[in-house]
Amino acid sequence: MPGDVPESDSHRYVRTTRLEAFSDGVFAIAITLLVLELAIGQSGSAVHRVLEGRPFYLAYLVSFLTIGAAWLGHNAITDRLTKADAGLLRLNMVVLLAVSVLPFPTRLVAEGIHDSSGERLFVAMYGLTLLAIRVLLFALDDYCQREHLYTGIASGEDEEASPRKALLPVVAGYVVAILVGIALPAVAVALYCVLALYLVVPFWELGRLLLTRT
Amino acid sequence: MPGDVPESDSHRYVRTTRLEAFSDGVFAIAITLLVLELAIGQSGSAVHRVLEGRPFYLAYLVSFLTIGAAWLGHNAITDRLTKADAGLLRLNMVVLLAVSVLPFPTRLVAEGIHDSSGERLFVAMYGLTLLAIRVLLFALDDYCQREHLYTGIASGEDEEASPRKALLPVVAGYVVAILVGIALPAVAVALYCVLALYLVVPFWELGRLLLTRT
Amino acid sequence: MPGDVPESDSHRYVRTTRLEAFSDGVFAIAITLLVLELAIGQSGSAVHRVLEGRPFYLAYLVSFLTIGAAWLGHNAITDRLTKADAGLLRLNMVVLLAVSVLPFPTRLVAEGIHDSSGERLFVAMYGLTLLAIRVLLFALDDYCQREHLYTGIASGEDEEASPRKALLPVVAGYVVAILVGIALPAVAVALYCVLALYLVVPFWELGRLLLTRT
Amino acid sequence: MPGDVPESDSHRYVRTTRLEAFSDGVFAIAITLLVLELAIGQSGSAVHRVLEGRPFYLAYLVSFLTIGAAWLGHNAITDRLTKADAGLLRLNMVVLLAVSVLPFPTRLVAEGIHDSSGERLFVAMYGLTLLAIRVLLFALDDYCQREHLYTGIASGEDEEASPRKALLPVVAGYVVAILVGIALPAVAVALYCVLALYLVVPFWELGRLLLTRT
Repeated sequence: MPGDVPESDSHRYVRTTRLEAFSDGVFAIAITLLVLELAIGQSGSAVHRVLEGRPFYLAYLVSFLTIGAAWLGHNAITDRLTKADAGLLRLNMVVLLAVSVLPFPTRLVAEGIHDSSGERLFVAMYGLTLLAIRVLLFALDDYCQREHLYTGIASGEDEEASPRKALLPVVAGYVVAILVGIALPAVAVALYCVLALYLVVPFWELGRLLLTRT
Repeated sequence: MPGDVPESDSHRYVRTTRLEAFSDGVFAIAITLLVLELAIGQSGSAVHRVLEGRPFYLAYLVSFLTIGAAWLGHNAITDRLTKADAGLLRLNMVVLLAVSVLPFPTRLVAEGIHDSSGERLFVAMYGLTLLAIRVLLFALDDYCQREHLYTGIASGEDEEASPRKALLPVVAGYVVAILVGIALPAVAVALYCVLALYLVVPFWELGRLLLTRT
Repeated sequence: MPGDVPESDSHRYVRTTRLEAFSDGVFAIAITLLVLELAIGQSGSAVHRVLEGRPFYLAYLVSFLTIGAAWLGHNAITDRLTKADAGLLRLNMVVLLAVSVLPFPTRLVAEGIHDSSGERLFVAMYGLTLLAIRVLLFALDDYCQREHLYTGIASGEDEEASPRKALLPVVAGYVVAILVGIALPAVAVALYCVLALYLVVPFWELGRLLLTRT
Repeated sequence: MPGDVPESDSHRYVRTTRLEAFSDGVFAIAITLLVLELAIGQSGSAVHRVLEGRPFYLAYLVSFLTIGAAWLGHNAITDRLTKADAGLLRLNMVVLLAVSVLPFPTRLVAEGIHDSSGERLFVAMYGLTLLAIRVLLFALDDYCQREHLYTGIASGEDEEASPRKALLPVVAGYVVAILVGIALPAVAVALYCVLALYLVVPFWELGRLLLTRT
């Protein structure tokens, strides 16, 4: 059947340059806008006020690392792309929606620490956004593979950053963290931080460095 | 007459790279700044407060989709551009003005839900901005065509995103929605959402996928 | 003397790609951040509140047009650049400083309309920033010319946008507007608007269009 | 040993285009967001209010110059890069973290001038962030050198901007300024300004200009 309708005729492709530039812009702005949510306490000594800001610092770090990991994953995708199609541009827009909305639940979580009634709900909303970013990135990677948008050579340039890396354990980790957060919201945020660090830190690369240096 | 004055002499062209980079920047920032307008209710239980934010979420979604559709349309234009001229750079600036001002009526609409006297006016201002973005994109596409800035091949790479796609029905849709909003502002915002979804979702592409998969 | 020390040895050049990308980012962000300063009146009917926002709309428009004109001028410079040197990168930074600080006096002017004592001072500060942007752009263009960073061909691709266009009348216009503002601040802002429109609107191009169409 | 495992097999490289675009975005946004922290005094005559804003202006200038110097240094690095690896992308993310967080301590310092108890702490936090940016840039440059990511030719295109330029004196300068700030916070901020100016102003280039012109 696909032989009857030649792919090259039924399907139109576009350049990937603006897809990359627009995405880089959204990633860069979302990751930099997070700084506007940083705050310190309003009363007490200066040291006390700075220490009071800890929930803001932690939420900032988790969101920074998560957007950073998402950018690395997005980069690992576009690094192998040879062309884009209409579907990819739309699916990419949904990824960017999840990334660019992240400063909102980040703010809720940071402020929610002082509001024990809302804390649990906000931490769950935050975790769901983090999970959505990861799943959508995987869907983007999967779409590119199914629609043959990648170069033929399976180069795996930045394997550690691929959205396929440990997908199931990472998704399971987010689900567990969200469930834990219903009882222990602070522990959930710590788990989000561990997951983000796991996605960003290139353990494989660090191992290689240690091995070749000794 | 045009033969007497050779086009290539009387007319100067510039590269399109910075036109694209600057436009991508404005689109990316406008779409990401929208998150700063997101808010939840100020009183009641946490669930109630989050639910109170619904007008903000809806306005956020409509504006995100509209800027997304505008970017897709803009991309469909520059994808075929071979050169730019002074007129294009200025007309593009007017498109960017309409796009970058959108967070302002978005905020008014979201806040206006609590202010029944202003709601009607704000919803109309919002709809006019959404309509202006669409009409200006069409004008940009039209200018490129009239001034022969496009490549000769009518490739239609991303037909679904072209600012020519269903221009009259879409303009008529916005006019109807704005008029409906005078009586029923909430319905108007729902219609804006339907129009934005229609512009973003590639029904043609989805149909193709379904057809070739069965 | 210059013959003794070959230019190619004593002088180092860098690519212009990142100069353009960084500048485009700053221009795009500054022009889009202006929307955060837009506001409407706080009391009265909705129509009255929207009308109360007029100083914000006017200041927004003037700043948008001025940054737009500056981007056009900057684009006209880099469009002819073949290389950059250390001095150009620094001088460009000063241009970006003036552009990125503009949202601050814009806010002061918009708010100052309600504060008759500050109005005069704020309108003067605003005019000086607008003037500084224009003069610095000219200095950038002049530096490129003196240091032979331009391509040999005087192509004048976008003559209307060149920072050399009507430099003296424009500078004189700003000086007159700032002086007028000491007595009549509202008139000064109107003059700033006229000057920005003059810099953005391609009268030459419009004339050409009219001539070739008739 | 390295001969046994060919570098080209065990190590994967990626393009540098998106590394540059994403970094440019973060630098541009961080440097432009600083304007949101600018403010004037709240009471007194207009002149008095504008003068009251001095701590904000000084902190703005120091942060603008520091991010500007960091961008110049980052540009001097990527100008010589031929390829990127997974480690570089992550190390770059840490540089961007330090750059994008800078508006936060900038705000604390500017506001802290009115809060003598917090002033010392905020000025120290600010200085540590400025120092971290410089040290991380040097680490990035060092990583590229050790991992052979640079082009072979030691061109030194923008020597003045290299993160290696006067590393020890600059680090020592920051340490001294931070220590001085414990007793005299205002002097520390002045020293930060001197250090940023030293990093941005191309004295070597200025000297060359003066020499070749006379």
